[in-house]
Amino acid sequence: MTPPRGFDRFEFETRLARLQGDMALDDLDALLLTEEHDIRYITGFMTPFWQSPTRPWFVVVPRNGLPVAVIPSIGREAMSRGFTGAVHCWPSPLAEDDGISLLGQVIRDLVGRQPVLGMMMGAGTKLMMPLMDVELLIDSIGAPELVDATVIMQATRMVKSEDEIAKIAHVCGLMSGVFEALPTWARTGMTVGEVFTQFKIKALEAGVDDVSYLVGNAGAGGYDDIISPPGPVPVAQGDVLMLDTGSVWDGYFCDFDRNFGFGEVSAEAREAYELLWQATEDALTSLKPGMTSAELFGVMQNRIGGDDDSVGRYGHGLGIQLTEPPSHISWDETVLLENMVLTLEPSMALPGGKMMVHEENILLTAEGPRLLTTRAAPQLPIIG
Amino acid sequence: MTPPRGFDRFEFETRLARLQGDMALDDLDALLLTEEHDIRYITGFMTPFWQSPTRPWFVVVPRNGLPVAVIPSIGREAMSRGFTGAVHCWPSPLAEDDGISLLGQVIRDLVGRQPVLGMMMGAGTKLMMPLMDVELLIDSIGAPELVDATVIMQATRMVKSEDEIAKIAHVCGLMSGVFEALPTWARTGMTVGEVFTQFKIKALEAGVDDVSYLVGNAGAGGYDDIISPPGPVPVAQGDVLMLDTGSVWDGYFCDFDRNFGFGEVSAEAREAYELLWQATEDALTSLKPGMTSAELFGVMQNRIGGDDDSVGRYGHGLGIQLTEPPSHISWDETVLLENMVLTLEPSMALPGGKMMVHEENILLTAEGPRLLTTRAAPQLPIIG
Repeated sequence: MTPPRGFDRFEFETRLARLQGDMALDDLDALLLTEEHDIRYITGFMTPFWQSPTRPWFVVVPRNGLPVAVIPSIGREAMSRGFTGAVHCWPSPLAEDDGISLLGQVIRDLVGRQPVLGMMMGAGTKLMMPLMDVELLIDSIGAPELVDATVIMQATRMVKSEDEIAKIAHVCGLMSGVFEALPTWARTGMTVGEVFTQFKIKALEAGVDDVSYLVGNAGAGGYDDIISPPGPVPVAQGDVLMLDTGSVWDGYFCDFDRNFGFGEVSAEAREAYELLWQATEDALTSLKPGMTSAELFGVMQNRIGGDDDSVGRYGHGLGIQLTEPPSHISWDETVLLENMVLTLEPSMALPGGKMMVHEENILLTAEGPRLLTTRAAPQLPIIG
Repeated sequence: MTPPRGFDRFEFETRLARLQGDMALDDLDALLLTEEHDIRYITGFMTPFWQSPTRPWFVVVPRNGLPVAVIPSIGREAMSRGFTGAVHCWPSPLAEDDGISLLGQVIRDLVGRQPVLGMMMGAGTKLMMPLMDVELLIDSIGAPELVDATVIMQATRMVKSEDEIAKIAHVCGLMSGVFEALPTWARTGMTVGEVFTQFKIKALEAGVDDVSYLVGNAGAGGYDDIISPPGPVPVAQGDVLMLDTGSVWDGYFCDFDRNFGFGEVSAEAREAYELLWQATEDALTSLKPGMTSAELFGVMQNRIGGDDDSVGRYGHGLGIQLTEPPSHISWDETVLLENMVLTLEPSMALPGGKMMVHEENILLTAEGPRLLTTRAAPQLPIIG
């Protein structure tokens, strides 16, 4: 069943209350957001316009009260329907002062001069405004104490609400169906690019809003590059084809892959597939709330062995972004909690510079993982 | 005819030579790039993996010699096929030092300590690495003089090569065909969301790689919001439907829109359409190399009149990004040169908070503009 689009106001009130609770603990007067996912999480503002890099967008979250948007005029109509207390606009783009003095004034009016100002500055964050404007902003609000707010924002976002989970589950379900039907139309002789195009069309027909992310590859007994656009070489007998998709429904991602063999596939590839499947099976049977990401990594690593570090981790969080914290990796001590949505994504190197990857999406419940994807087959599915 | 994918090595040598020429004039020892479009422009490295925000990617362009990549191990294979002198990798993500000490060492080895280091810091740029890591990097390379390199990189990128133009022309041609066929399938009763899905499928069938950007709206006699996702309301008689797409082929964008009326459309909407069409006609007949963006804006503004600033400009550059410099706006004194690819995008407010937008894509030649899009009809096309 298709869940409703959007969220009710209570969802945003809850998100804001959790964030502001942590802001108070960290003595933040305000938090400045510049990235799409954070701004959408707090205000509900959703637009493909982030593809247009010309204009910066700002949301200020005061310690008390509603978020305040400081945005280009072109977004006034859309942002005004969001969860904000006020929407301040300027006619962006502007040459000399592209919103910075307005932003500074809004922050001063909200929390005074020299505030303790949280910004997203840590691992995994980007600064979606010109670096030179940071100094102008600091001047404008008078020597704020800048505090990294990455951890509190990520902690708020990592645990998903029921409505968020419903959206992720929905897109995982749609794309599981698209993957299941792939053997009915994918054939040797098609290039990987042709497979990609058909896959995207089938996904749109199935009901996703966008196939925002699609990578994959095919090769004899495995593939050597899992992040490049598809090449012009046709899929051949003996190949393993892998597609990894981050498709989106109502602003929430799935992120999982599937492998398919064509005809006679090497024993090494088939055994690697089974080993990775078993590693996710180990994770599915042993994961419980309270375990850390590092421990979850360890469960999968125990099965796989080796020390290939080309991918660097065995999965991550999932939601508004294709990849969110935590990382299932030896050093990430994030405690995994009920209602986190995670990927399980073990990988391994094969001889000859090839590799194999496998991925499932799960919701962590009190009883353990609940699969959001239709479980991959324990043996490499063979087409033809 | 479909142009070949990719570029030959000469293309990258030319780009690098132009950039390094400007770097020498500005006394830059090296230039640090973190954004997808800059990195792809210089190295050819293309991947959907930029959707994954966890890992930072760096390319250092020394004043002499080939670009050097400092990237997560997961990209080694793909980047090694690019135009780089060396590819340094670390097993990202890492908790404490996610590539920064390696990047610092690479910069020191290339150009020594305390270099004059160019970074993209100006209007339209983002910092695709954690803000906190900037300080670590500065420490690591010993008090560099940081210089904003936005203008020189943008100047290099604004003038397109023949092969770049061929790619943009190709995607403009494909999407012109998709728009031309829209009246054969779009109907009242479809929601804008359903129109979007069909439009994306038709675009993929036509041969684009991705419909990366699609916004639009429909409403009686016009629309009030041109950046939101499609709503659930069916298109009705009397509506104007607008779709604006940034579709991609081999990493290059088109960016244009088309308007369609359904049945009896208000005279105000039809007249606004004709006025905007005439504004682009004025631009097409008067634009010559040597004019500035501000002058081009003036040509269109003269026709339209009024002072609506909600969109803020009447077009922009186009290429690897959906929107690139310059901006056709009163203050942008960029001189328009042969082989720039530009959008002409006038807009105007209608009564009742509605608006109308119109957009074409052009190549500026010595003789004036050459349309890359199939020219929109001078009157609002009516369906049904």
